[in-house]
Amino acid sequence: MQFTSEQHLGSGVLEREFTLGEIPGTLWTPESAAPAPLILLGHPGGLHRMYPRLAARARQSAAEGFAAATIELPGSGDRPRSAAAEQARADLRRALEAGEPVDDEIVDRLVLPLVEKAVPEWQTTLDALLSLPEIGGPVGYSGGVMAIGIRLAVVEPRISAAVLFAGSFVPRAMFEEARQVTIPLHVLLQWDDEGNDRQQALDLFDAFGSKEKTLHANLGGHTGVPQFAGDAAAQFFTRHLS
Amino acid sequence: MQFTSEQHLGSGVLEREFTLGEIPGTLWTPESAAPAPLILLGHPGGLHRMYPRLAARARQSAAEGFAAATIELPGSGDRPRSAAAEQARADLRRALEAGEPVDDEIVDRLVLPLVEKAVPEWQTTLDALLSLPEIGGPVGYSGGVMAIGIRLAVVEPRISAAVLFAGSFVPRAMFEEARQVTIPLHVLLQWDDEGNDRQQALDLFDAFGSKEKTLHANLGGHTGVPQFAGDAAAQFFTRHLS
Repeated sequence: MQFTSEQHLGSGVLEREFTLGEIPGTLWTPESAAPAPLILLGHPGGLHRMYPRLAARARQSAAEGFAAATIELPGSGDRPRSAAAEQARADLRRALEAGEPVDDEIVDRLVLPLVEKAVPEWQTTLDALLSLPEIGGPVGYSGGVMAIGIRLAVVEPRISAAVLFAGSFVPRAMFEEARQVTIPLHVLLQWDDEGNDRQQALDLFDAFGSKEKTLHANLGGHTGVPQFAGDAAAQFFTRHLS
Repeated sequence: MQFTSEQHLGSGVLEREFTLGEIPGTLWTPESAAPAPLILLGHPGGLHRMYPRLAARARQSAAEGFAAATIELPGSGDRPRSAAAEQARADLRRALEAGEPVDDEIVDRLVLPLVEKAVPEWQTTLDALLSLPEIGGPVGYSGGVMAIGIRLAVVEPRISAAVLFAGSFVPRAMFEEARQVTIPLHVLLQWDDEGNDRQQALDLFDAFGSKEKTLHANLGGHTGVPQFAGDAAAQFFTRHLS
């Protein structure tokens, strides 16, 4: 893990960009508390585009005493593109623009290979982050690309709680996998998110095997998660990671 | 409003039983803060049976600086029974015990007259409570018999926010009424509550006309609302009534 930049954001938060092999990422640490529990910030890809929202989430996490980290997804941002993923993304966009239902087959082509590539990268990143003296356990996963969060929750025992954002397509094959999730879950659903299949999100919530699972549904569209809902997610991590 | 008993619960909470005409009820006030905002505690009827849970909710409200009050429902507890309501209740119980779907007609017979009788009683109680020097505005409604909460939210402008517990049958005719609700809503749904129609609860949440509405779904059965979900509901009132 090579740190390539370092910036004090104020309010006692240190922001460092890093690369880990070919994976670029960002780490935010509270300068006061060490070692800090860690929250992995999931997102749909495109670190630069997502930066304002990620940094806001990281600042809130730091204020609660948590470190936060994110990495660029394979095939997104400045990382090499995959022709197959680009094709699947174009097919998805075409279906959405035409107002057609999205074929399961498109979702499978887009999301399954992404999960296969991204999850081991998150795990490698986790190895590196947990070797830093300023990071301790436990670890939470927070955010989008729900399918990545599900797979991580199943295969990565170092993740002990997750906030999942129900705003992305999940391959049908992964519903069975959702039953194997047993860590405490806090699921955010934007009720009137037009790009999201609400019924699928509810079915998925139902499928999760966790004994503690909470669904918070709110108005406000895909990017309009209310401040109080962000606060509630932060409280969930405080309950489970502190 | 006649106070018939008075008890200091400790932690600075005063509990007083009252009667208002033929309506018995209980008022909890924080001894520190006056005048306090008020939360009306809804419940399915049977004040004595419900007392432990109501008192726990009232203590939590008092700790946040809120007064809380509840009244016995018409036809419940020690109040005179209605033959028609008893018949409807028996028909409902029979359908549930037989594992049959509950006829809309039974729900209408049970709930619509209850709403017609209970809502004016709540309003009369509100008149009396708001005339006490220790009670100020604003006012919230919290709890069950969702249909009563819906009607109150529509007809009673002094109620400015509501926590609704999705654990009771709501007449189909009231779904249209739900669209007229515009106050901030916080809806609690026990996801695996066998006595509750989950899809109906989701449809009802969808129908509410409020710009701010939040659904919190949790595991734990009808009476198993987790402590953190109660805390979140308390925070909702702190946001809207303080």
